[in-house]
Amino acid sequence: MARALQLALRGAGHTRPNPMVGAVLVKDGRIIGEGWHKQYGGPHAEVNAFARATEDPEGATLYVSLEPCSHYGKTPPCADLIIRKKVARVVAALEDPNPLVSGRGFRKLRANGIRVTVGVLAEEARHINDVFLTYVTRKRPFVLYKAAMSLDGKIACHTGESQWISSEKSREEVQRLRGILSGIMVGAGTVIADNPRLTCRMEEYENPARIIVDGKLRVPLESRIFHEPGRNIILTTSEASPEKKKALENLGVELIEADSEEPGKVDLKSAMLALGIKGIDGILLEGGPTLAASALEAGIIDAVRFYIAQKIIGGREAPSPFAGTGAAHMNEVVPLTDAVYGTSGDDLWIQAYIQREKKEPEAGEQKVEEAQTESHEETNGGNS
Amino acid sequence: MARALQLALRGAGHTRPNPMVGAVLVKDGRIIGEGWHKQYGGPHAEVNAFARATEDPEGATLYVSLEPCSHYGKTPPCADLIIRKKVARVVAALEDPNPLVSGRGFRKLRANGIRVTVGVLAEEARHINDVFLTYVTRKRPFVLYKAAMSLDGKIACHTGESQWISSEKSREEVQRLRGILSGIMVGAGTVIADNPRLTCRMEEYENPARIIVDGKLRVPLESRIFHEPGRNIILTTSEASPEKKKALENLGVELIEADSEEPGKVDLKSAMLALGIKGIDGILLEGGPTLAASALEAGIIDAVRFYIAQKIIGGREAPSPFAGTGAAHMNEVVPLTDAVYGTSGDDLWIQAYIQREKKEPEAGEQKVEEAQTESHEETNGGNS
Repeated sequence: MARALQLALRGAGHTRPNPMVGAVLVKDGRIIGEGWHKQYGGPHAEVNAFARATEDPEGATLYVSLEPCSHYGKTPPCADLIIRKKVARVVAALEDPNPLVSGRGFRKLRANGIRVTVGVLAEEARHINDVFLTYVTRKRPFVLYKAAMSLDGKIACHTGESQWISSEKSREEVQRLRGILSGIMVGAGTVIADNPRLTCRMEEYENPARIIVDGKLRVPLESRIFHEPGRNIILTTSEASPEKKKALENLGVELIEADSEEPGKVDLKSAMLALGIKGIDGILLEGGPTLAASALEAGIIDAVRFYIAQKIIGGREAPSPFAGTGAAHMNEVVPLTDAVYGTSGDDLWIQAYIQREKKEPEAGEQKVEEAQTESHEETNGGNS
Repeated sequence: MARALQLALRGAGHTRPNPMVGAVLVKDGRIIGEGWHKQYGGPHAEVNAFARATEDPEGATLYVSLEPCSHYGKTPPCADLIIRKKVARVVAALEDPNPLVSGRGFRKLRANGIRVTVGVLAEEARHINDVFLTYVTRKRPFVLYKAAMSLDGKIACHTGESQWISSEKSREEVQRLRGILSGIMVGAGTVIADNPRLTCRMEEYENPARIIVDGKLRVPLESRIFHEPGRNIILTTSEASPEKKKALENLGVELIEADSEEPGKVDLKSAMLALGIKGIDGILLEGGPTLAASALEAGIIDAVRFYIAQKIIGGREAPSPFAGTGAAHMNEVVPLTDAVYGTSGDDLWIQAYIQREKKEPEAGEQKVEEAQTESHEETNGGNS
């Protein structure tokens, strides 16, 4: 299954709005076929694994990171193919939360005498497809807040200077995140202060949609973002001037007039649903700290990814990743979970997920349906 | 050598002011003896390795994390013992910067036909003995600033509340650090606000000397620290009232009247030399952020160790590890180096060293004197 998840990741940035899926065929303890979902509309992981099988898959075990589909979409149902190939057993990480599948794939396999195990490496599989799972179950984009900071938690000097805190390697990785996620979000203040391009400079990816939070439409028409290829979406409110709206629409900008509790302040929670309708399934939130604090308070941030540089910036007035008021007491802090970390260049990065109040049923969650021990033994055996 | 360093660490907290040293005897690719310096005044690592040798060490290679001594101290010179035992080769990580040794050990060995290699895993060996090396070469304590912070770089809520940010495991580790280092330093503000005990709650260690930075002697006589076992040292200035001084001395407090450039503000740099004279070789700086910023500015911090919790505290006014003004520009930030990291409970910890302006000659530094390849081959062979 670990191998299937590795394969799944190869589709990153190209399968949207479909999930990334990997599949591995194992027979007599040997891998006889591997595949992954390469791009939206193309053949599914299972199809590719069978196509590349070096032996007859009859009696084999199929490890797959998501429930095989049971419906006709862009391609015929994978469940039918699996039955036809006479696979003996299917081990899946997750049930597909898509209402068109949602257990139907497994039921079809079982009805045809195939043993099915669900839930192996489920947590890892969920994190790989957090964008897909959030989008399909909550109809809003998955939001990842990324920031670069010094080891003492500062994202800029007290003067505002911040180029560059993180290593070249980390900045490259952020470019890749921009390519993988369908949207990138900043506040109007960032556009006004820095006039950034907000493009993905990696050739293999498309530009993300640029999403600007600008309740009063303060961004200048001359901003670079309006003259770069790619979608521009502005979240604004009824406080915006109709003339400015008109002028921005003439530049091809998509405007979302969001709800607002305070005049001129975008209600981010409802705006996320509007972005979901526009097909935005994942957002890289790039700051600044005031917008990040509003997003945290609105509950729209799903995960944070911080690049931590081997530097001390210091200073009481130097900004940290979140401005605003913050928690007054330790029992009001926002808990994180499932932290993963590593290095990029000289930096350390940490990614962690906002722990939800729960237990709201989590996307794709399902218990391992067979004895845990048995499935683990077979997973290990099959992959070794 | 990696094994020798592991062994060396077993002496942590007990060898002071001596270094931690480990030694491994290897013959025909097998380890035939191991030892480490267990406690101050006791036999050195080499002596213990020979004593525990399971075979005649004639012709063996001795891996030792520090140059063998050549002088009569509390114990006879190890170099003589090594010669007597007819060891063929000595591989050392570092030269001993102690002026009584400082190359004399190696010279004696070479003069007696023993091959000597120096510099294997030197960096790791230096970090293990950073307290000893700093103290012996600079005559001042090694200062480690430890802080517990949220992932967004906050050491407390904006209200000041901070119990507890880090995991129980991390807090236990801090107790161990208090035991290993001979001093613990906080500002008067921390004593006044929190009235902490500042003891080491682990039985196997002694209490560290409590060092309070208090230029105007504001700490109340009733503070808990004055009624706990262990030394209390206050760094103060000529601004302090003679009556308060007298009263504190009556409580057994040692007072250091440090230089000050501003009235009532302790010059930390010169105070460190005074602490060195009092036998303080290592200090755990526990904050708060204002003292930490002063210490950083004074250049007395050697390393930082931050425990990062899976929490977001947030808030523009919530404190970070360093208060003060901080860097105004990115070319003024304090560079860190040699970061190491790991987990403790749910927290991540990172330790990194302040990068000095350099290259001032660094304690114990010396190039590998024989071909790098050869010594590495033998190291690997010897340890496998």
